[in-house]
Amino acid sequence: MAAAGAGGDDLKLLGMWASPAVLRVRLALSIKGVSSYEYQEEDFDNKSELLLRSNPVHKMVPVLIHAGKPVCESTVIIQYLDEAFAGDGRPALLPADPYERAVARFWAAFIDDTLLKAMYQASWSKTEEEKVEGKKKVAAALKTLDGALRDVAGGKPFFGGDAPGYVDTVLGGLLAWARSMDVINGVKTIDPVTMPLLAAWADRFGALDAVEAVMPDVNRLVEFSLSLTT
Amino acid sequence: MAAAGAGGDDLKLLGMWASPAVLRVRLALSIKGVSSYEYQEEDFDNKSELLLRSNPVHKMVPVLIHAGKPVCESTVIIQYLDEAFAGDGRPALLPADPYERAVARFWAAFIDDTLLKAMYQASWSKTEEEKVEGKKKVAAALKTLDGALRDVAGGKPFFGGDAPGYVDTVLGGLLAWARSMDVINGVKTIDPVTMPLLAAWADRFGALDAVEAVMPDVNRLVEFSLSLTT
Repeated sequence: MAAAGAGGDDLKLLGMWASPAVLRVRLALSIKGVSSYEYQEEDFDNKSELLLRSNPVHKMVPVLIHAGKPVCESTVIIQYLDEAFAGDGRPALLPADPYERAVARFWAAFIDDTLLKAMYQASWSKTEEEKVEGKKKVAAALKTLDGALRDVAGGKPFFGGDAPGYVDTVLGGLLAWARSMDVINGVKTIDPVTMPLLAAWADRFGALDAVEAVMPDVNRLVEFSLSLTT
Repeated sequence: MAAAGAGGDDLKLLGMWASPAVLRVRLALSIKGVSSYEYQEEDFDNKSELLLRSNPVHKMVPVLIHAGKPVCESTVIIQYLDEAFAGDGRPALLPADPYERAVARFWAAFIDDTLLKAMYQASWSKTEEEKVEGKKKVAAALKTLDGALRDVAGGKPFFGGDAPGYVDTVLGGLLAWARSMDVINGVKTIDPVTMPLLAAWADRFGALDAVEAVMPDVNRLVEFSLSLTT
């Protein structure tokens, strides 16, 4: 597998600026210091031939195309990046120990299967009742992640320990969306009173240079969200 | 991480005989030749203290406890097994090449996110209409996997190539359930006419000694399924 840095031609990301799944991949690239890639914005109403050909099963972003070969699905892409762009002083997102890797994969799956689904329900349900139910599930899932920072990360600044890792990246992709929910709903989705460790994590993660560099503008996200629901 | 074979005390699987997710893990253990583990059957109406303590987030099987440390979620467990029980002549379930690993993870995610969900809808929906819709989705997902055997495995006998691997194990866990659906619905869920490669795969995979050794009895599964729906 070719190393990074050979120029944008070797590495291309098909994305959509507001997508939390795409943000995850951009965060992973940024944290790993892989900066020389070409980014192609997709229009969902008029998807590119390259997207349709590269992800014929789901026809969705993100797709990472490395040396002409496509990789699809955000968590699959991040693990691929971590394996294909290893060494050369690049930080590893997943730990080396098999048990710690399993723990990281467990929390990444929790974020996708439990938190992300609840966020969809809270934001895009048809009835107000379902939305309220979704918001409760979001709060419960975030509380569980607050507990994970205490029990699993053991007081370290990130889920990945002293530096951001796989779980930080997977959860971090949802941060911009959570912030736009704050504006729309007039609440703190990650409540510093009931989930202080997670709120501190969000501030800490969000303040990293590698993260700030790729975070979408929250006001633009708010406008985008409101345009979808009205 | 300790090697296998030190006795059942080091490795314990909390399971439930009819669970496709548990079957996946038993398949992985069997294919890798890890036979010296203790199996504990769980009663869902009266879950063990060990299960509740080992998987406090989901309280679900399968849980693999290795040297006292729990690993949860079937695909996380299989990847853990592959990493913790490597070498010693044991077959690897995931390939070594980062791109091939990504392809395997993509199909495993497809099986969970698309096929498994459709199987749930086909079997456990409240209305007959939803069940019919679910069966159509199952057929479409299986057709896609038939195509993957052609395009990805390139005519090799297994998704893993010449030997069964990660995707074979993840899909294989659903085989017993598919067979019981055949009996209940009087159809071939994996239709040899419309998905010949996948049907041949199912026969080939199901006939492996390592697979036959852990497959649950289909008639017992049929009885179990019918007892849940009536």
